[in-house]
Amino acid sequence: MAVTPTSAPTTSRPGMFRAAVAGASGYAGGEVLRMLLNHPRIEIGALTGGSNAGTRLGELQPHLLPLADRVLEPTDAETLAGHDVVFLGLPHGQSAAVAAQLGEDVLIVDCGADFRLHDPAEWEKFYGSPHAGTWPYGLPELPGAREALKGSRRIAVPGCYPTAVTLALIPAYAAGLAEPEAVVVAASGTSGAGKAAKTHLLGSEVMGSMSPYGVGGVHRHTPEMTQNLSAVAGERVAVSFTPTLAPMSRGILATCSVKARPGTTPQRLRQAYSAAYAAEPFVHLLPEGQWPATSAVLGSNHALVQVALDESVGRITVVSAIDNLAKGTAGGAVQSMNIALGLPEELGLPQTGVAP
Amino acid sequence: MAVTPTSAPTTSRPGMFRAAVAGASGYAGGEVLRMLLNHPRIEIGALTGGSNAGTRLGELQPHLLPLADRVLEPTDAETLAGHDVVFLGLPHGQSAAVAAQLGEDVLIVDCGADFRLHDPAEWEKFYGSPHAGTWPYGLPELPGAREALKGSRRIAVPGCYPTAVTLALIPAYAAGLAEPEAVVVAASGTSGAGKAAKTHLLGSEVMGSMSPYGVGGVHRHTPEMTQNLSAVAGERVAVSFTPTLAPMSRGILATCSVKARPGTTPQRLRQAYSAAYAAEPFVHLLPEGQWPATSAVLGSNHALVQVALDESVGRITVVSAIDNLAKGTAGGAVQSMNIALGLPEELGLPQTGVAP
Amino acid sequence: MAVTPTSAPTTSRPGMFRAAVAGASGYAGGEVLRMLLNHPRIEIGALTGGSNAGTRLGELQPHLLPLADRVLEPTDAETLAGHDVVFLGLPHGQSAAVAAQLGEDVLIVDCGADFRLHDPAEWEKFYGSPHAGTWPYGLPELPGAREALKGSRRIAVPGCYPTAVTLALIPAYAAGLAEPEAVVVAASGTSGAGKAAKTHLLGSEVMGSMSPYGVGGVHRHTPEMTQNLSAVAGERVAVSFTPTLAPMSRGILATCSVKARPGTTPQRLRQAYSAAYAAEPFVHLLPEGQWPATSAVLGSNHALVQVALDESVGRITVVSAIDNLAKGTAGGAVQSMNIALGLPEELGLPQTGVAP
Amino acid sequence: MAVTPTSAPTTSRPGMFRAAVAGASGYAGGEVLRMLLNHPRIEIGALTGGSNAGTRLGELQPHLLPLADRVLEPTDAETLAGHDVVFLGLPHGQSAAVAAQLGEDVLIVDCGADFRLHDPAEWEKFYGSPHAGTWPYGLPELPGAREALKGSRRIAVPGCYPTAVTLALIPAYAAGLAEPEAVVVAASGTSGAGKAAKTHLLGSEVMGSMSPYGVGGVHRHTPEMTQNLSAVAGERVAVSFTPTLAPMSRGILATCSVKARPGTTPQRLRQAYSAAYAAEPFVHLLPEGQWPATSAVLGSNHALVQVALDESVGRITVVSAIDNLAKGTAGGAVQSMNIALGLPEELGLPQTGVAP
Repeated sequence: MAVTPTSAPTTSRPGMFRAAVAGASGYAGGEVLRMLLNHPRIEIGALTGGSNAGTRLGELQPHLLPLADRVLEPTDAETLAGHDVVFLGLPHGQSAAVAAQLGEDVLIVDCGADFRLHDPAEWEKFYGSPHAGTWPYGLPELPGAREALKGSRRIAVPGCYPTAVTLALIPAYAAGLAEPEAVVVAASGTSGAGKAAKTHLLGSEVMGSMSPYGVGGVHRHTPEMTQNLSAVAGERVAVSFTPTLAPMSRGILATCSVKARPGTTPQRLRQAYSAAYAAEPFVHLLPEGQWPATSAVLGSNHALVQVALDESVGRITVVSAIDNLAKGTAGGAVQSMNIALGLPEELGLPQTGVAP
Repeated sequence: MAVTPTSAPTTSRPGMFRAAVAGASGYAGGEVLRMLLNHPRIEIGALTGGSNAGTRLGELQPHLLPLADRVLEPTDAETLAGHDVVFLGLPHGQSAAVAAQLGEDVLIVDCGADFRLHDPAEWEKFYGSPHAGTWPYGLPELPGAREALKGSRRIAVPGCYPTAVTLALIPAYAAGLAEPEAVVVAASGTSGAGKAAKTHLLGSEVMGSMSPYGVGGVHRHTPEMTQNLSAVAGERVAVSFTPTLAPMSRGILATCSVKARPGTTPQRLRQAYSAAYAAEPFVHLLPEGQWPATSAVLGSNHALVQVALDESVGRITVVSAIDNLAKGTAGGAVQSMNIALGLPEELGLPQTGVAP
Repeated sequence: MAVTPTSAPTTSRPGMFRAAVAGASGYAGGEVLRMLLNHPRIEIGALTGGSNAGTRLGELQPHLLPLADRVLEPTDAETLAGHDVVFLGLPHGQSAAVAAQLGEDVLIVDCGADFRLHDPAEWEKFYGSPHAGTWPYGLPELPGAREALKGSRRIAVPGCYPTAVTLALIPAYAAGLAEPEAVVVAASGTSGAGKAAKTHLLGSEVMGSMSPYGVGGVHRHTPEMTQNLSAVAGERVAVSFTPTLAPMSRGILATCSVKARPGTTPQRLRQAYSAAYAAEPFVHLLPEGQWPATSAVLGSNHALVQVALDESVGRITVVSAIDNLAKGTAGGAVQSMNIALGLPEELGLPQTGVAP
Repeated sequence: MAVTPTSAPTTSRPGMFRAAVAGASGYAGGEVLRMLLNHPRIEIGALTGGSNAGTRLGELQPHLLPLADRVLEPTDAETLAGHDVVFLGLPHGQSAAVAAQLGEDVLIVDCGADFRLHDPAEWEKFYGSPHAGTWPYGLPELPGAREALKGSRRIAVPGCYPTAVTLALIPAYAAGLAEPEAVVVAASGTSGAGKAAKTHLLGSEVMGSMSPYGVGGVHRHTPEMTQNLSAVAGERVAVSFTPTLAPMSRGILATCSVKARPGTTPQRLRQAYSAAYAAEPFVHLLPEGQWPATSAVLGSNHALVQVALDESVGRITVVSAIDNLAKGTAGGAVQSMNIALGLPEELGLPQTGVAP
């Protein structure tokens, strides 16, 4: 294949939006680029990295061949200037400073946590730093969120676990079928832990092993789930959340158990889920009897959902599957970007998984 | 390596027990053999298989080199006669007929489900066939079970999920710290599904994928967990159980969530767990802050347990890890056999995992 | 997501080619559909299956959500009639009969082996049945192949291993730098073995394991490699080929070793590779020092290649990586289809891998 | 399980050898400990670590439960004094200094590379430091090695790849059936790369991926293979070696191709292999038609070997499978220790793999 330009093109073609990606060497940044490469209205501008500035992208993201010869630039205001959209895939706490340097008319899509939570106390409890603020939340399926995203120039992309869990439980809480306490056990692929080299994330350690972490309500995604589900339920929903690390690169399988409210029947339950997602382009209630597998959404922006009522114990079990990097991060980011820019919501987003 | 005999030796040496394994070509049978090969008081007698009768074990279980040249015999009374111990690794429903043909003084260790449940109605509801009876239950850690096993000539080996879940929750229920409703999500390696060729268990399907199955209270291990936990709690414990298939060959990680009873504190909780397992040779409460990983017990007979109280939601989370084929099947079987035969309980059982 | 039609649309839109896929329930058929769903000039017509006729595609290929509600039809002439293109993903030996029933103006793209070999004796030696004939070979990078594909109405898609190995060695043989004996060891993901349920392909068996098969020149892809490399070299190239099964679903890594001819230098070698693939859209010679990984091409139609001369032993080592289902089967098929139909060669084909 | 002592016992029981392990936090050190825990004549003394000194072993090697409460000590002469055997699992270049501080009557078993090579020039070429010397080589199957190990107080444990490759090719070269040029492609599990945190070894990077490294004769195990095979052949054997990283934690599958000398027949070849290994306790020639899989030797000290002659191209293909940490490192180390100490060679070594 012939070589590609080493620097970003500096002019936009008509009808195109020019997008920069800060943190292009990480897993979130790489997946944003994979999505943008297939987006018909996006032109890829500056790519920046921290310690990787100066490195060819082909060394860091060898799967993104069309950008292989691009060289990462430093993450600074000068580099990020002149774009219509800037995606931030930065460590927690760094987004606010970068955003402050960009204009108010630039669409900033933050894949980090900084602007997700409403409650400063919750932020400070879980992140230990001052709260930076709250931006429109990039989960269009959450009631009210799609409207807030329209025309917005700031987007807080949800966490991967909150995406999977919120999509699993919206219909049950919106229809008033569940008590306000959710027990969630979710398995995630290792890419959710990022690309920094850590011993416990070595292939030797994770292959053939399942392990929990952040047990007992201490995982930072817990307040985000609580915020989302409480908003839907109209009352505070307590969330007992246990994340587990699974021996796979991608995917989240979220198993959610809630006590059914009196009067809940299998028919009412199914009807609530069917109605809630009939018009959603990226959430798919499976036919009865078929349960989600993460392999079916690898690389895809879809969420798969299935629900059952266990009448012997009076509990509802909902399972959802997403690709943590796609619908759980970069796909959700691009879907929200489309809404913010007034583009068709599905534009450029992968509709199929890569399986087997 | 020099060749080994093709048929079983026909005489026992003094002080040795002679053991046959019916179903030696399957995963449970293979793991029983791996354990017995390291057992100083066991001499391995007849090995039988169904459709594999006549085949060298080396073709079917190439990891059991010392038995590579043994040839499988048919599973019938004649072949199984003349042994002190007979392990049954047969499909559900076949154990009763085989057991009826063996003498009452032969120790029969059934790795199948036939004799686990007390309640014939529960059996018939979940298995759809007449109840064969109930044998002493091969989970020595369950209150009363060790005593029932002593000198017994019949053992019903527990299911792999019930082993993991019961060990996780015994201390909480025994100490009266938990409400009688347990939400359990467990991830299992694929060997738990057996060695029969099925499309959904192909490597291509399971690698890189997490998926649930038997959701909504329909998995056959549910009544067994209910039976165990209810016996410990002294009241009926409702169990909401969701098994998931993980991309690994071995291991169960069981995540259990129960509502804490009033007055439960982290200290009381830890004390209950610490006391319950201080003297157990094969259940290990990890130091605070360290959580179980299935890789740490691969090939080992140990169960690892950790517990936390999430005070913000008033729930206890317990996670246990076992090797489904070892402590979850064959190791539990040999441990119970040791008790039944009056041997030291730890004899011949693997004390270390194989990691990484 | 709203439901999709259960049967194929029966009329074509202007400028669109209507394509049927026979064997849509298998891995090759599924990957062809994944490619076609993203192809702007293809309309997906009939989908057929053998024993799976009558089943929803969503049950068999849950990752292909846009086609989830399509129902498989039987593989017969009536169903396959009325299409511009018919992809065949059938067991070896069945393609000729199906092809005979379709018109000569229909483009038939056979993903099976039936029409790959020129030499009837080689076919009969390796496949044990009469030779059905030879069709234009769907590896456009092979000298002369692209021209033969133009306007053709028959395409024999290469085997996955021959694709990887031929692309690795074309430049060395075309430039006369290598002796006519190639030693090839290739690792393949399990999807290369298909979707039929077999014990040795169970996840429990393949995870954590590498194993060889078809050793000693007996693998059916050997004569195809020999045919290709001999055509490039202008003399018979002997191929010693050992395939191995790797614990991953997709991907082929082919390691090829050939003796360097006198006068071969690192510079001449690199120049030969660089020149051979400078204009190829789907073969990418990596920068010096970077070696291919299969993860970089998962889901992509690209082949990655790197070469080194080990002067201490006088041998050239070339490594190539492809996705066995993409460039190795379905991607190669669609690329060749594009050429045959006079479309841009890259149209609709995935340019990026899905990583990590 | 009850707690274990936090420091090493300071007195030896009669008939026991007391062994220290330097580098007990690494993969090699952990596997040595797993072996020693099952060794009836070894008492485990001091355990040392570099940056991990002061840490409980249970945090670092959670699978070694019987040693969980041991605390790592610093790697210095004082700590290592007073042992009969000292295993060194240290980074390359550190063993000589440690060894110099221990007495000449202490058996030092070096799992590193420092004392493997005879030729100082080869050492310096591949390792870039002065040659420390040569110790008796811990591969008892190599002609002459077993005798040299008897009574020795120094052992250089072979590299994992050289173990697999040498065992694969000894019979062919010893019998004069092969030309002196070997092409070797070997796949290794990731534990061979050690426990240091590196990005390219993250689970996210290695799962689902095969990749080569050290291509073109630059891997440090190449001169060791050359040394071994040349010694057997009686002439210099050129080795073209390509290692690949496979998505599994453990195991090496070595595929070796050599040109057959005139007169080589399948019968002579098989006879050579059969005779060479008939009396070896840990090398097993599989029955004809059965090929090695790494899963069959996981955790075991056995090597599995199979050989075929491809008469159409006149080449011999040999495949061997070992566990890189067991026979490839710690098992080979303990086997050699047994010989050096005059113990039965098989004592305490695992005879079975853990599968599936």
